[in-house]
Amino acid sequence: MHETYELEKQHQPVPSNYPKRLGIIGGGQLARMTAMAALPLGCEVIVLEKNPLSPAARLSPDSMVGDWNDPATLLKFAERCDVVTLENEFVDAHALAALEKAGHLVFPGSACIALTQDKLRQKQALEEAGLVVPKFRAVSSPEQILEAANAFGCPLLLKSRRNGYDGKGNFTLRSEADVPKGWQALRGDENGLYVEAFCHFTHELAVIVTRGRDGETVVYPVVETIQRNHVCHLVKAPADIPCEIASGATELARKAVQAVDGIGSFGVEMFLSRDGALAVNELAPRVHNSGHYTIEACECSQFENHVRAVMGWPLGSTKMVAPFAVMANLLGEEIASGQPLGMENALSQWGARVHIYGKRMSGPGRKMGHVTVLGSSSENALNIAERAVKEIYFGAKL
Amino acid sequence: MHETYELEKQHQPVPSNYPKRLGIIGGGQLARMTAMAALPLGCEVIVLEKNPLSPAARLSPDSMVGDWNDPATLLKFAERCDVVTLENEFVDAHALAALEKAGHLVFPGSACIALTQDKLRQKQALEEAGLVVPKFRAVSSPEQILEAANAFGCPLLLKSRRNGYDGKGNFTLRSEADVPKGWQALRGDENGLYVEAFCHFTHELAVIVTRGRDGETVVYPVVETIQRNHVCHLVKAPADIPCEIASGATELARKAVQAVDGIGSFGVEMFLSRDGALAVNELAPRVHNSGHYTIEACECSQFENHVRAVMGWPLGSTKMVAPFAVMANLLGEEIASGQPLGMENALSQWGARVHIYGKRMSGPGRKMGHVTVLGSSSENALNIAERAVKEIYFGAKL
Repeated sequence: MHETYELEKQHQPVPSNYPKRLGIIGGGQLARMTAMAALPLGCEVIVLEKNPLSPAARLSPDSMVGDWNDPATLLKFAERCDVVTLENEFVDAHALAALEKAGHLVFPGSACIALTQDKLRQKQALEEAGLVVPKFRAVSSPEQILEAANAFGCPLLLKSRRNGYDGKGNFTLRSEADVPKGWQALRGDENGLYVEAFCHFTHELAVIVTRGRDGETVVYPVVETIQRNHVCHLVKAPADIPCEIASGATELARKAVQAVDGIGSFGVEMFLSRDGALAVNELAPRVHNSGHYTIEACECSQFENHVRAVMGWPLGSTKMVAPFAVMANLLGEEIASGQPLGMENALSQWGARVHIYGKRMSGPGRKMGHVTVLGSSSENALNIAERAVKEIYFGAKL
Repeated sequence: MHETYELEKQHQPVPSNYPKRLGIIGGGQLARMTAMAALPLGCEVIVLEKNPLSPAARLSPDSMVGDWNDPATLLKFAERCDVVTLENEFVDAHALAALEKAGHLVFPGSACIALTQDKLRQKQALEEAGLVVPKFRAVSSPEQILEAANAFGCPLLLKSRRNGYDGKGNFTLRSEADVPKGWQALRGDENGLYVEAFCHFTHELAVIVTRGRDGETVVYPVVETIQRNHVCHLVKAPADIPCEIASGATELARKAVQAVDGIGSFGVEMFLSRDGALAVNELAPRVHNSGHYTIEACECSQFENHVRAVMGWPLGSTKMVAPFAVMANLLGEEIASGQPLGMENALSQWGARVHIYGKRMSGPGRKMGHVTVLGSSSENALNIAERAVKEIYFGAKL
């Protein structure tokens, strides 16, 4: 056992031009799960995050502590990496363009991030590509919102163009009387806003698409997502929908990612209406909560395929290894330690696959982990997942 | 995204008595894969290894650089952990007993390690428990080896009692004339030796057993292992053997781990002879190369079940998620960088699940990684695994 260390001390590895250092901007759970998929592929993972105890930084001693909002920090970071990717869409696209200009490989590229991080431009791009999206319109004053309410009817969704996630940056206008409240809530004087017609959907669907640097594309099964307080609560894979709708959703998702020239794994959210019509809700230029089930349920997870895509390697199979999978999120309830309690009871639920993200603190609604269950019946998997989730809690609840 | 860091800076987590810090003595690939199973369960992993760039230390910033042969270092290490486990059986059992005496939780316990790290005592313990093992006898001189050769016949295996692995510490005596050579090769004047009758087996089988702190035991499918130069080359799961032999092997493995009071995941190697008889070859008190396939192929891997067992949590399902799985080792060929080359070609083998261990250097026969393939046919999985393995090489071969 010890000779090998002597071997390592005596010999310096031959430098290689083979890319291996994968930089991830952001250190949350998405970066952590991406890192865990990248390590077995021989990558060295370098995370950039200002929190030195972030979920991903804690498993990468090479990580860099710094603010990815600072372009100079980003550039220093990129110099340490062979390929740079991101775990969120909030990184300034101009700063990413500067990295590209300096010769660094950044995937998805800055143009794609610019297009997708502005949800108004994203919707325009999808519409221009001929894809169905809910009716939308830019608004720059309360008066314009009222005009749109007249045109589209209420309820109407008022949305920030940037920095929205998990329902943050959205406001539902139930009637025209809500317009001033919405304008104020989303700080319309400072932020670019747009409105979107309310979609009377029966199901919310999501599809993970991975697209390689050469355009090769693989698509994961269509799943149903069930939100609670605008946060993904449950994912059922595959969605219980007719075959032709699943085919339509698959094509829609593939085209959406192509429309923004996406590279890597992308989450595409859609609405399915009672009449069977599909519309793209939005697209996230990154691995996505609706694809966490793929870690156990698919031959190659969204995380591994993301790594393969950005490293320029061939993509893997998206086939499910079980007929059904259910994923349930573990959300924090109060400000408390991030240490999970109740693991014994959760793990006694046969088949529950528990993923704790290693956040130092829990908070109300904070995503602290998730549970996936595979099964030959969707109901059975759902029951086990829900029982396991109920057992786990964080910090001081006792 | 940034509020959460502010939250973490403002609040200190409430201290909890809930165990979470898992210490692993040793930092090789077994520790690395154990760490990767422990992190999603909410554990903090602390590795003790003198090589700061060991495969496991590289993914745990909390790791401790130090020599686990030094009892004082071990004690300092244990003080930082809630539970201590080990990735190899070479740690001095007396030093482990001292940790236990100081009140630390060590699993498997020092008594089990003492019993299993001395392969002569291990064989005696298995025999005393009524389990079939090949005939064996302690030898302390070349003359005693000759006597044993007369009694058991040749070929005869001469073995070191301690520190053997992957054929190291074994010498095959083809005739009595080989005795002086064997005595010298294994340095019989310094090392305790024993001899073992050669077993004319048709298959080598292996079974992973996980036993919890409360004695709860789960058993993985019986697999066939195919060695090349005494190193595990291929694992086929499940082994292509009659049902009643599989049942016998399962029971034998379960009893073997019980006989040494094992806690955690153990690898039990067996011989199957032409007449259908089974004999225990040896038992490793740790996760085992023959169980790497369980990462993808089973509902709960040998690594996760090891963590569950030593943390005192309930064990998970050992059921396979596919009809067949094949694992092939990636062995180094020469002294070169540990950086894998040829990944593009390997990953283009649809279904190949590649695990690179992140060793800094490759060396002849060194275990650098493995490939697992699930399939509905064993032949198909084998073909894909072997093709993928052929594509990957390390360092300077170009």
